[in-house]
Amino acid sequence: MFEARMVRGFIIKRILEAIKDLVSEASWDCSTSGMSLQAMDTSHVSLVSVSLKADGFDKYRCDRNLTLGMNLASLAQIVKAAGNDDVITIKAPDDADKITLIFEPKSETETWEYEIKLMNLDSEYLGIPETDYSVKINLPSHKFQRICRDLSQIGDSVTISAAKDGVRFSTTGDLGSGNVKLNQTASADKPDEAVTIKIEEPIILSFALKYLNHFARATALSPQVSLSLSKDVPLVVEYVIHDDDDDEIGYIRYYLAPKIEEGEE
Amino acid sequence: MFEARMVRGFIIKRILEAIKDLVSEASWDCSTSGMSLQAMDTSHVSLVSVSLKADGFDKYRCDRNLTLGMNLASLAQIVKAAGNDDVITIKAPDDADKITLIFEPKSETETWEYEIKLMNLDSEYLGIPETDYSVKINLPSHKFQRICRDLSQIGDSVTISAAKDGVRFSTTGDLGSGNVKLNQTASADKPDEAVTIKIEEPIILSFALKYLNHFARATALSPQVSLSLSKDVPLVVEYVIHDDDDDEIGYIRYYLAPKIEEGEE
Amino acid sequence: MFEARMVRGFIIKRILEAIKDLVSEASWDCSTSGMSLQAMDTSHVSLVSVSLKADGFDKYRCDRNLTLGMNLASLAQIVKAAGNDDVITIKAPDDADKITLIFEPKSETETWEYEIKLMNLDSEYLGIPETDYSVKINLPSHKFQRICRDLSQIGDSVTISAAKDGVRFSTTGDLGSGNVKLNQTASADKPDEAVTIKIEEPIILSFALKYLNHFARATALSPQVSLSLSKDVPLVVEYVIHDDDDDEIGYIRYYLAPKIEEGEE
Repeated sequence: MFEARMVRGFIIKRILEAIKDLVSEASWDCSTSGMSLQAMDTSHVSLVSVSLKADGFDKYRCDRNLTLGMNLASLAQIVKAAGNDDVITIKAPDDADKITLIFEPKSETETWEYEIKLMNLDSEYLGIPETDYSVKINLPSHKFQRICRDLSQIGDSVTISAAKDGVRFSTTGDLGSGNVKLNQTASADKPDEAVTIKIEEPIILSFALKYLNHFARATALSPQVSLSLSKDVPLVVEYVIHDDDDDEIGYIRYYLAPKIEEGEE
Repeated sequence: MFEARMVRGFIIKRILEAIKDLVSEASWDCSTSGMSLQAMDTSHVSLVSVSLKADGFDKYRCDRNLTLGMNLASLAQIVKAAGNDDVITIKAPDDADKITLIFEPKSETETWEYEIKLMNLDSEYLGIPETDYSVKINLPSHKFQRICRDLSQIGDSVTISAAKDGVRFSTTGDLGSGNVKLNQTASADKPDEAVTIKIEEPIILSFALKYLNHFARATALSPQVSLSLSKDVPLVVEYVIHDDDDDEIGYIRYYLAPKIEEGEE
Repeated sequence: MFEARMVRGFIIKRILEAIKDLVSEASWDCSTSGMSLQAMDTSHVSLVSVSLKADGFDKYRCDRNLTLGMNLASLAQIVKAAGNDDVITIKAPDDADKITLIFEPKSETETWEYEIKLMNLDSEYLGIPETDYSVKINLPSHKFQRICRDLSQIGDSVTISAAKDGVRFSTTGDLGSGNVKLNQTASADKPDEAVTIKIEEPIILSFALKYLNHFARATALSPQVSLSLSKDVPLVVEYVIHDDDDDEIGYIRYYLAPKIEEGEE
């Protein structure tokens, strides 16, 4: 028996919104420690990894490890229908060929229940080595979203150059060029709006904006996003998910290899 | 001479919004008792019936019975342009080949006037027999709208099963199944949000969601909708229209026959 | 060196929104007195003329007269990305083959900088003779926008008839006819909502609604619009741009010749 209940059901809605256009089918791995998912995007360029800790749920029970293969687009379509205040519960028997999703609107005498068929998916778990990154940038996630969106008006790829005092995002296209400079912010009175840069050695790396724009759909999950960069290693774009007490309950991480030509500039 | 003036002109806007996609052309029958319209939808599956009492208008004069045939989509397009606070007046001479629509924005020294050509439409008035229904369900109209919309994500038809304590809407599709259970609400402190079920004998009947979704466009006309069901008889979906004093001034009713196969489950 | 800085950068955004669909490429003429642009629309039917006084900028420097040819659609796309509170600065060297656009979000330690390639455009400056118009109508710009939009539901052209006490906009189409009558407003306690009519001799002139709808995209630039009309002379639709102290800092003017057939009604 598997059962996971999330009072703040909108977190599940937002996770699905953040991955559904990137990954069409994937398996959730459920164990006593929580639920996780790892999948390449449909064009096999980027990788997405989601983790939700058992602690992050309001009720969590997993008697036996389970792999729940699903069409994420369909799942997202159904879960999108849940109200933002709905409590969402996911249930599955041990020999599941379907899961049950239950939406409970607050203070309502009504229940929404969906049964969704599971799929057998070939899945290959990619070990992602722990890396010491040359640069780690934390910035407001809405700012990262705007930068990716606006620079896409000009060019197809963005070059990120980080130094001690600031980070620059730049692009070039037929029309001209665009670049955004963010300075490290001084104090920490508004941590959500802070820009912080930890740097071992400066880097200049380029990435396809198309994928970064996909990643930025996770913006609603966290006020801050972190970018971890090293030469010849995929960029990690991470959104840490917090509960009401600001404890970490999970994350969504996207991995994208640098563009080779421009990374060598 | 025919003249009907509605200070709360948005009611006329909403009625047209609620029927324009279902019925392309129809005739309004005007008499001393009020205006009414009855028409099959363009695919001849469902029937819509609208009635507005003479009392419900702020001024109403009808010297002679009139039949005003119109393209409802065009009429809706024009009336949509009226402001939500506009007073709307409909005028026609006795031998009308066109009607005049007047919109008067409140506290404005301006007048909008449209003349719309009338059409000669063959119309056949269908007598709808009064029926004692096995089940009558009253529920918040926004809830009915959400149920129809969300279950459409899963399947094409909905099965409604009603028993004393509650009503269940369920559907099945390639993806899985979905069902919503509404319990009868206890007290009546929030009548708009109440769910009440009057039952002679339990029923299980299925209907095409496509049409129910069309009917749900009348949601803005009334906080509550009623569903009247009996075996082998069309479902009636009714939105009663009230004035500011909460008096009934009319209704919009939709009729839809049950699906035969699933009704026999 | 050319440099123009506008703290209320949204004015530049709105000007570009108001012309980008009408004119695809055009040249800004920059001199010590300010920036201006004049161009026929892509179908060579209407003319648009924009002027921004040097005084209207928060900083303005123009060492030498410059002509900056641009793709306005691309420029609008980039400037659209600026926040509504951003300060916008335009810079160009004297021998410019590109300009630099700088967006500075308020209270942020960030800068957005775009370089946009310039184009060599053949431009022919049309002298527009000063005319004494028979009629000048001032009305709320949102009202003019609504009239043009709503009458487009009925017909392709609008006939404007002005007399001392009021102005009438009317149109005819397959569906019927529509007309709006605005009366001159009495007092001046709400100047933004006033309708004023100055009349030398009554006129009846017709214009293509398609172009008026384009012009109405300047609505956000000014609470009032003026229409200047004379027989056999293009209509002038003018939006005057004010600063925070309500001083005039520029305008956007559209010119459109009357329709010959209907003007002779």
